[in-house]
Amino acid sequence: MAPLKSWLQVDPKSHFSLHNIPFGIISTLDTPEPHPAVAIGEYALDLHVFSQQNGFSALSIIQPHQKVFSEPTLNAFAALGRPIHRVVREYLQSLFLDNGPFPDVLEKNEQLRKATLLPLKNCKMHLPMFISDYTDFYAGLNHAYNVGVLFRGPQNALQPNYKHLPVGYHGRASSVVVSGTSIRRPNGQILSNPAAEKKEPVFSECKKLDIELELGCFVCKPSKMGEPIRIEDAPKHLFGVVLLNDWSARDIQAWEYVPLGPFNAKNFGTTISAWVVLIDALEPFATVGIANDTELLPYLDEKDRKSNYAIDLSVSLTTSSSKTTNIGDLLGSGTISGESKTEKGCLLEQTDNGKIEITLEGGEKRTFLEDGDTVTLTGVCGSENGALVGFGDCVGRIEPAVQLNL
Amino acid sequence: MAPLKSWLQVDPKSHFSLHNIPFGIISTLDTPEPHPAVAIGEYALDLHVFSQQNGFSALSIIQPHQKVFSEPTLNAFAALGRPIHRVVREYLQSLFLDNGPFPDVLEKNEQLRKATLLPLKNCKMHLPMFISDYTDFYAGLNHAYNVGVLFRGPQNALQPNYKHLPVGYHGRASSVVVSGTSIRRPNGQILSNPAAEKKEPVFSECKKLDIELELGCFVCKPSKMGEPIRIEDAPKHLFGVVLLNDWSARDIQAWEYVPLGPFNAKNFGTTISAWVVLIDALEPFATVGIANDTELLPYLDEKDRKSNYAIDLSVSLTTSSSKTTNIGDLLGSGTISGESKTEKGCLLEQTDNGKIEITLEGGEKRTFLEDGDTVTLTGVCGSENGALVGFGDCVGRIEPAVQLNL
Repeated sequence: MAPLKSWLQVDPKSHFSLHNIPFGIISTLDTPEPHPAVAIGEYALDLHVFSQQNGFSALSIIQPHQKVFSEPTLNAFAALGRPIHRVVREYLQSLFLDNGPFPDVLEKNEQLRKATLLPLKNCKMHLPMFISDYTDFYAGLNHAYNVGVLFRGPQNALQPNYKHLPVGYHGRASSVVVSGTSIRRPNGQILSNPAAEKKEPVFSECKKLDIELELGCFVCKPSKMGEPIRIEDAPKHLFGVVLLNDWSARDIQAWEYVPLGPFNAKNFGTTISAWVVLIDALEPFATVGIANDTELLPYLDEKDRKSNYAIDLSVSLTTSSSKTTNIGDLLGSGTISGESKTEKGCLLEQTDNGKIEITLEGGEKRTFLEDGDTVTLTGVCGSENGALVGFGDCVGRIEPAVQLNL
Repeated sequence: MAPLKSWLQVDPKSHFSLHNIPFGIISTLDTPEPHPAVAIGEYALDLHVFSQQNGFSALSIIQPHQKVFSEPTLNAFAALGRPIHRVVREYLQSLFLDNGPFPDVLEKNEQLRKATLLPLKNCKMHLPMFISDYTDFYAGLNHAYNVGVLFRGPQNALQPNYKHLPVGYHGRASSVVVSGTSIRRPNGQILSNPAAEKKEPVFSECKKLDIELELGCFVCKPSKMGEPIRIEDAPKHLFGVVLLNDWSARDIQAWEYVPLGPFNAKNFGTTISAWVVLIDALEPFATVGIANDTELLPYLDEKDRKSNYAIDLSVSLTTSSSKTTNIGDLLGSGTISGESKTEKGCLLEQTDNGKIEITLEGGEKRTFLEDGDTVTLTGVCGSENGALVGFGDCVGRIEPAVQLNL
């Protein structure tokens, strides 16, 4: 795929190339109420101002729906459905094309350019969607296997149900935060001596604070209660994808999770990246996923094998002794790990549950996260400069635990 | 406590006595948009019409907040906080008192009485709150013990963490429905032969459909992320209580719940009663709960031992061969069971996981629920007629599973 050329200067290494056009919620000094925008290179195109100033006049299909661009979340836009998302994204993309079909709308309209093209560094980012249910899955086969080996050995690493169905649980929707929000280390019950026969918990700050590198997917089409979505219809229900860091308190989790699953070990915060990359932007990177050697029941069997996307994911950890760099119904994938040592998507796996220290670039060592640590997730599709489709950063910094005076 | 006397005829056996005054959301032929009301006896007092027609003119503290009575949920009213709930409830209660302080407002105002006092049978009930997170606990000691005995025997019935912390998980907020809504039997993966060594799931309708008798509590005061609520402040955060039926697909649950907890086995529906009984109405029934023989860590240790409420709970099951009677951030308690055979709050316990049939009043037998079965939960505080404080019914009827043509 040859990179699309734009009259706007976009760094060829930008994850927000013309091939992307992700949607987010911004506020600015001039328009302090949160409202929708798209990102391109180092700019946001302010969709509220753009629609108010008749930027969509060439797109008659969107006329009756323009109020969605003045909403504080993308829910109303998402609800318009994928055919509308596609038309809007392609129209906005076309406005930035060299020799595009509508040069008068933006390229040759200095007044509208000045009013709507805002440097990203001047935009405050907000949660892109109002989230009423947050469901987190366990879809990363390598992660499930690695964690299983840690706790049950290689013979019984995967639970019997794992390859038959998508194992998942509900997370806390109200503690999902946008990239850049600090995360306070949680307090909770941990076992003072997990190996002891008598289990005696103490109240303590978490000492095994971990990350989980995941993708999150937003739903755009509701389903009716009691009416399941057929698997071939599922893509119509998906709005777009973000990076997701499902922060985890491993010591709290180990004690609390039997029998109802993780709870306070996850509730203290989940960070997502600010820009929603639409499914259409990912389609060129569709690929076949890891093969399942277990035959799936028909209701889960996707006829279309190319229903995964090739995304290069990475995690970086910045300690507080270094300088930090901050930029301003969700379905989480579960931690995504590869097969090699450097491809493990959480510290639990990386450090063999705290037994093996890892050495960071600056020489510092870690088993789990320390106060002041900043974790950044990134993800990008493609390798051709000028045509990258990525997510922006998903950043969180660990604040010390609350001191409770009990 | 002597029953309060009212000029309004209220059946002395009504759970909505003058001592209760529960809040709910109704719609009527005349006012089809859902809006708040309180229940008293066989009537709803329509708070939207009541506030519009200056019913609150004697209550100056509520003047600036009257728009909460025209909202489609009780969230805005709840957000006003417990001191306001108390004033509003006591004011409304006083209006119905024989020789009350404000006879001109309602008792002697025929026009307002006719406009606002509506027979409950003419009111359609709606979900009382918009629920963004639904957390379900496992607080019923007898239930946890009984279920533990079923699966692990009496020696290891309770997990090591059980008496140290409130075990809980997140349920699906969007599938919480109001009493009277039919519940469709779910399809899902179940083991064709659970005893076999090789675990082979089949796709099937649930064959072990169960109920769970619980209480639900609504939150009225938000907490800030990273700032825990001290246990002595918890009551300020509680709005009121409803009955809750956490329908459970036991065969789906048994296969899916390791290691992340219950998911699709619970997601298909949770029924709550329509009327929220305020905490103040329950206070006269405050009592000491079941003693915990394990010393709690200080952050969970309630100084006030009378933080439980004495509520008589019951379940009734009506089969489809009989006539059915239907009337119109949530915290579930977990199933509530007593110690005797007849005090088991779910069929899993009642039938020893399907091994022992129970015989219903009409002679029909059940292990788990059949299509067309209607389950009704009730709950009431007190035993003195004319002073009962109850919840109304929490009703759901089982519809047959969706037939998937795979």
